[in-house]
Formats: sequence, structure tokens, C-alpha cells
Amino acid sequence: MRAASFGAGPAFAFFLTKVAVMRSLSQSAPRDPLPAALVGTLAALLGERFSTATAVREQHGRDESYHPSMPPDAVAFARSTEEVAAIVTACAAHKVPIIPFGTGTSLEGHIAALRGGVCIDVSAMNAILEVRPADMDVTVQAGVTRKQLNAHLRDTGLFFPIDPGADASLGGMTATRASGTNAVRYGTMRENVLALSVVTPEGRVVKIGGRARKSSAGYDLTRLFVGSEGTLGVITEVTLRLHGIPEKIVSAVCPFPSVRAAVDTVIATIQIGVPVARIEFLNARQILAVNAYSKLDYAAAPTLFFEFHGTPDHVAEQVRMVQDLAADQGAAGFRWAETPEERDRLWTARHNAFYASLATKAGGRGFSSDVCVPISRLTECIAQTEEDLARSALFTSIVGHVGDGNFHVIFIVDPENPAEIEEARRLNDRIVARALAMDGTCTGEHGVGHGKMDFLEDEHGEALDMMRKIKRALDPDDIMNPGKIVRL
Amino acid sequence: MRAASFGAGPAFAFFLTKVAVMRSLSQSAPRDPLPAALVGTLAALLGERFSTATAVREQHGRDESYHPSMPPDAVAFARSTEEVAAIVTACAAHKVPIIPFGTGTSLEGHIAALRGGVCIDVSAMNAILEVRPADMDVTVQAGVTRKQLNAHLRDTGLFFPIDPGADASLGGMTATRASGTNAVRYGTMRENVLALSVVTPEGRVVKIGGRARKSSAGYDLTRLFVGSEGTLGVITEVTLRLHGIPEKIVSAVCPFPSVRAAVDTVIATIQIGVPVARIEFLNARQILAVNAYSKLDYAAAPTLFFEFHGTPDHVAEQVRMVQDLAADQGAAGFRWAETPEERDRLWTARHNAFYASLATKAGGRGFSSDVCVPISRLTECIAQTEEDLARSALFTSIVGHVGDGNFHVIFIVDPENPAEIEEARRLNDRIVARALAMDGTCTGEHGVGHGKMDFLEDEHGEALDMMRKIKRALDPDDIMNPGKIVRL
Repeated sequence: MRAASFGAGPAFAFFLTKVAVMRSLSQSAPRDPLPAALVGTLAALLGERFSTATAVREQHGRDESYHPSMPPDAVAFARSTEEVAAIVTACAAHKVPIIPFGTGTSLEGHIAALRGGVCIDVSAMNAILEVRPADMDVTVQAGVTRKQLNAHLRDTGLFFPIDPGADASLGGMTATRASGTNAVRYGTMRENVLALSVVTPEGRVVKIGGRARKSSAGYDLTRLFVGSEGTLGVITEVTLRLHGIPEKIVSAVCPFPSVRAAVDTVIATIQIGVPVARIEFLNARQILAVNAYSKLDYAAAPTLFFEFHGTPDHVAEQVRMVQDLAADQGAAGFRWAETPEERDRLWTARHNAFYASLATKAGGRGFSSDVCVPISRLTECIAQTEEDLARSALFTSIVGHVGDGNFHVIFIVDPENPAEIEEARRLNDRIVARALAMDGTCTGEHGVGHGKMDFLEDEHGEALDMMRKIKRALDPDDIMNPGKIVRL
Repeated sequence: MRAASFGAGPAFAFFLTKVAVMRSLSQSAPRDPLPAALVGTLAALLGERFSTATAVREQHGRDESYHPSMPPDAVAFARSTEEVAAIVTACAAHKVPIIPFGTGTSLEGHIAALRGGVCIDVSAMNAILEVRPADMDVTVQAGVTRKQLNAHLRDTGLFFPIDPGADASLGGMTATRASGTNAVRYGTMRENVLALSVVTPEGRVVKIGGRARKSSAGYDLTRLFVGSEGTLGVITEVTLRLHGIPEKIVSAVCPFPSVRAAVDTVIATIQIGVPVARIEFLNARQILAVNAYSKLDYAAAPTLFFEFHGTPDHVAEQVRMVQDLAADQGAAGFRWAETPEERDRLWTARHNAFYASLATKAGGRGFSSDVCVPISRLTECIAQTEEDLARSALFTSIVGHVGDGNFHVIFIVDPENPAEIEEARRLNDRIVARALAMDGTCTGEHGVGHGKMDFLEDEHGEALDMMRKIKRALDPDDIMNPGKIVRL
């Protein structure tokens, strides 16, 4: 049997059984309607920016994944940190759950109102508060999106590199510890968030972290909130590192004779220390979907998308080194994108890979795995996963930030067909078990939400108890996005 | 008055008064002797590796700073994670404080037994457990020192870059969120610790983090423990990122006509994005001390020490760029160190800067400031500090990891002379107030211990309350290195 091939036979079978049992325990508790006094308070505070309309609630209960909509009881559209604090204070008085909402582009049911409550939509908090070019940092409100920020920075010579597929809000990206294609060089939100303003579950506004590039002044609350998914407080402002736009940028696409050849090229690139800015893998099925969606004509083969940043001489040197490594693996050659327009076309196609997969099936919804493993295990992890997928009737594709050891299997399912969802889950459970057996993680960048909670016990063991203690200490009434990350 | 010159007049005066008042509240509570039952348990467990000898206790109560020795009641020399767990379990049963000890080279009284208790010395836990060259990571016991690790790695082509002045233990460096001269390129312990084994205050062994290069799987406990100074648990094993030894390394020393010229060169280097590996500032008095201590003959001027890492071509390009920037500031020229021996001599001299300053005064003890500010404020911060120091009779020098905005004023004081300690404190308080007014931090890399606790309220405000909640949640009996970072 295949399980044995990744060295986790009986443990693997046990893992799958346990996950199935845990999943069958429904997470939704009975819901009370919102207290009339709270509705009155919030309506008085926000006027038309407080809504209980069904369409508004439905829209705020569903993300971009297959997870079913679980709408909140009301949506509060905040315009400032002070308004968020007032909303939280009002909800806290009634112990009503609070779910922060940015662009709704997460993938693990992060915004599902499992126990009802009030969704705080921060998308109108979209002011870029201060750009400090001399310090290469910026402070934004949580609703600013990554594309909005980069458009604003255009004339400064600086950019913000973290780029999940969606044009997500920077508050949401902070909350999910997002990354994307540039993380191999520039890090994830973990490395690029300097400071935050958060509203605590008691409604207090607290500033955490600072603009100094390093500090040993106490517990690292910034990193605690990065990835906390709204469960410890509402992020309302974010101070981010910026990076200089490189003097020279070149991108290239290179098909390989096999998955193994492509991924081995990645491993060699990382081990030899070439500071690639981007190194992304797409399998042949993903390339076909991308070609159809973005009107491109890439060869239907396992493919790497590259980008190189630096001075012209340094970029030329990096390119030579990586071309040599690719040639060693039998790659035919690089197809270059040198002008900004060509590069933009290439990376837009890459960012739209999830949507390209969705477009292969009318009415389909996406289900994405997100494992990340130590780089030495990446080739076998992807190769074994490919074998699993080849035996399934589902449409699947693979795309990944392979320089970090992170890849996604995208399953396209009919949300009305339980058998398809079950099949995707079965395959995803195997992928996660394999990654954990290889010292990896169940989620490299999407986060836990409620979709991946069942895996955390196997990944973290007793450390999960430490997470529960922190959650209880900071949110004793469990009103901040309850039912996500940890069960209390 | 000078305070006004950094835009914090009345707030500054208030800050200094408050700090003085807080400092006068003594931190030491009355101490009970160790319970006989606990002594019996630990003696039975450890035999001769459990000591209550005065000399052993004294040695474990004092770090390398001016802080007076506050010895523990006993010292337990552990050899394994399991032994640490047994010691903690025994102490916890009696609510006896536990103080972890690596090499005792910290600088803010981190190891002072403010409330007595048992010091756990992990220096014999010095096994390098597993080097994984293909993943560029390593797992070590907490007592392994940074030099021991690099000596062990010599044949792998890999190295561990974080280098505080002392040859500290990697457990201690994790606990204080240490950095050093390479942080400008390779990050601090925050960026280089992947996973930990810790013993909780209940005596349980918990593994936190993982070897995947990124993960969004729940709260970032790894970063919470990095910098926690033994207050949340005892770190017993550390998994660290390693880096490839660059193909080409060159170092250089360059004197400047003024402090401003030197620091402005640093700022330009960072802003232009040259990936320098090291860029260190020493003022003229520090150069004189280094010359005397390390038998060197550098010009007595504000000086930068540089190091460049990369391919030969890329290093040559970086050198050209930085030489141009230095020439713009009137620097006379670079003095090169190309052979490993020359480089070693240069950097050993730099690492010994603290000891070189100590050697200027027989019987003197060191007191080091450690502020870190956003890079745009660095020149004015150092220049104003220089003016302060010029008006003091104390021996002082300045040395700093200026690429990060971090610098140290080293005060050499007679520990028996309260007036000297008071003068150093007065100057340090001004330096911290100035850094905080510039959006900086009171400690870039040394940590809080009990020496810097009084500054945290001004730096963190309400966030300090969040830190207290976390401490109480994870260590409800306040037995883990009590009296450090936060007061409960």
C-alpha cells in the first residue's frame, strides 16, 4: 500500500480515521438571535453601515473555497479603529461573536460565522496612513489591499512583495500569515509586519510591535497576531516593511521533461543559494487550465516560472546559474519575459491559476491543499501526490511556491455533490498525512480557519494546549472569531 | 535644553522621573530556603550535579554586566531534556523558582535569582543532535555554543551567522532573541529559529514550530518563545536555519571624518539596497580601546567595519557601490582583509569590543545601552548621544550594528561606586527616552532581564498588559525566571 511508501503505515491509517471522526462532530452550536439592545446600539453608531440584509449577510459568510456559507447575524461596516473598538465593546457586553472581514478571499472558512454574531467589514478602512521612504516602511489601515498599496507606492521606488493569488486586504493577509510567489526571497507576512494596531476582545485599542528593525523588548506580540486569524483581536492598522524595486527584473518560463526534473531544479537552486525572487511550479494540467483561462500557449509540461531581481550584472549571473541547473535536468530552454508588460502577463496568469482551475468546471468550487515540507523531501512529496491524483476521477492540478517547499493541489468539486467533496477530502487527508510524516505542515500560507483544525493536533501535539491557554487568556469569553484555529 | 531637540520635552522629563520612582521599588521579595524534600529529590536525581556550594551559586547569579550577583539557592546541572523536565516537575511541586542558565553572558541580569530558587545549568547539554545539509538546518541541545556549532559545521559548507559578542549558548541566544553583526543580512534569532523543545512550567516536554520554511498552522509559539528569557518555559533543544558559506567573503575597515559621515554612509547603503553582510560602527574611543586590547593600529576615528558575501562578481559590485557611497562622505579609503586569518583578526577584535572597553579600567564592570531606531533617525540619535557623552566624566564608547539601526553605548563603571552607576543610568535613561521618541526600542538584542523592565511600559503601553496575560496563562504560579520581562 502507498502509505508505507512514506513511512507512516499504521500511524497514517489511524490519522485518517481520527480526522474523519473529529470532522463528524459538528462545530455549529445553537444560535440565539442578536440581542435587540445590541442591534440598537450598532444601528445608532453606524446608521446604514449596519446591515442585517440577507444578501449582505450571505456575502459575508462565504469565502472563495468550497466551504458552505455560514452567514453572520449582521454586518458592521467600520471606517476607523475607534469604530471597530466601539463595535467590539458593544458585542463584548453581550458576549456576541465578532468575525473580522477584509476581502473574503480566504480559503478555509475563516469568515464563517459558526456561532453567528457580528461580522466587522473593514474594507472601507482603506487609507494608506503614512509612507516613510527613508525607513522603507508604511502604515496602512487593515482594509487596504496589496494591489492598492503597490499602486500607491509606484513613484517611491519601493514595493510590497507579499502576493497571495487574490488581491487580499493587508489586514487579512496579516491575520492568515499569507505569503505567495515572492516569499522565497522576501519572506512572508511573518517577516514583513513590523507593528499593528489591534482592538482587543474588551474593545481596547492596543499598539503592538514597533518600527525598529529588531527588538528584544519582551514577548513578540506582533508575530503572535500574525496568523491569529481574528481569534485574539481585530487588526485595524498594519505597519509593513517595504523593499526597493530592483534595478533589473527578468522573468522566464521553462518546461521540464518530468515533475521530478522540475522540482529537483528547484531544490538545487535553493541549496546552491541563488537568491531567486520567484520560483513557481505548475504541473501539466495546471498549465492547460492557465493557457485556456489566460489565453496563453505554454507547452503542456511540468513547468517552472522564474523571476530574478538585482543589478543587471547580478541578475545575469543568477540566470546563468539557474539555466545550468535546469539544463542538467534536461530542460529545453527558457522563454523570457523582459518588458514590464510581458512580465505582468506571465504573473497575472500565475496569480489566476486558482481561478483558471475553477473555470474548468461550470459551478465548481475550489478546494486547495496547502502543505509545505522541508525542501529535501519536496520531490518525493509531489511525485507521490501526483500518483495519488492520477488514480482519482476529480479534476486536480498542482501549483506551488516550491522554493519554500510549499505546493497546492487544487481540487475542483461540485458543491452539491457530497461524493466529490468526500473524494477531495480523502485525497487532501493523504496529502497532509504525507507532509506531516515528512516533518512538514498542513498549511504553508492559507491558514487554519475551521477547515484545517482537525489536522492541528497531529501537527502540534501538546503545543496545541499552549495555544488554547493563550486564546483563553486573551479572549476568555471566546467571542473573537470563535471555532477557528483551536476548539476550547 | 537638549530634551526638546528630540521632540519629547515634558514627556521626556516625566519619563525620567517615573523610571526613577519605579526603580526605587525593590524587586527582591523575601526568600525562603529550599524545601528539604525538594533538595532530597534533586540530589537523588542528579547526585554531584546538584550543588548548593557558595562558589557555584555565586557564579550562577551574575552575568557579564554591572548588575550585582543574586545567586540561586542551588544549581542543577542537567544533561537531557528529560532531566530538565524532572527538575522542573520537582520545583513546580513546591512552587520554587527556576532560572535557566547557558553561558551566563547576558547583560541585563537575566540570570539573577531575584526570588531565589533553582538554577538549571544546561551547559552540559551540548550535543549537536542532527545536521541536515540538504535542508540547511540543524537541531542542537540548548547548551551548544555558537562557536561550537560553527566548528562542527566546518566541512558542510554551511554556517550559522548569528553572533553576539560572547560565545553564548544557542538556548540562551534564543531566549534573549540575540543577534549580532550579521543580522543586517541574515536576520536575528527571530528569523533563524525554526523549532524548539521546551519544558513547560508543569514539567511537560513540548515541541513547538517545525522544519517547514513557512507555516500558517496556528499561533506562532516559536516566535513567542524566542525572546521569552526563560519566563515561559525552559528551552532544551533548538532547530536552526543554516546558510551556505559564501563563495567569496571580503572585509574592510574604513575611517570617516565624522560620526555623521560614517552613519550617513550606513543609511545610504541600506536605502540603496546593497546586501552587505556586516556593517558595524565604532566611535574613536572604541577604536582606541580595541587597538589596545587586540594589538591593532586602526586610525582613531569614527570607523565602519564591513563585510561582503556572495559570488566574486557580486561581491566586487557591492564593494564598488559602497566605496562610492563612502567616498561621497569623505572617507579616505578601505583597508582590506581578504585572507581568512586577516578577516578573523578583524572580527575577533570587533567581537571583543565590550571586553576591550572593560580592560580600560581595572575592576570595572560594563553597562551597555542597546537602543535600536528606524534607520532614518540613526545619525541624529547617535550624534545627540555623542553630545551627551562628551559632557560626562565616565569612560564611554559607542559600537553598533548600525545597518539595523542598533547601537550600544558601553559605560565602564566601578561597581563599588554608586555615583558612577547612577551617572551611567542617567545617561542610559536619556538614550532610551530619545530612542523611544524616535519610534525605536529600548533593547535591540540584549533583552529585558530585570535591568530594562522599567522601560517597557513606555515602549509598549497597553500591550504590556497583554504580555502579563500570556505570562499568567502559561506560568500561573510565576515560577519560570520570575521578575523578568513583566511584573505580575
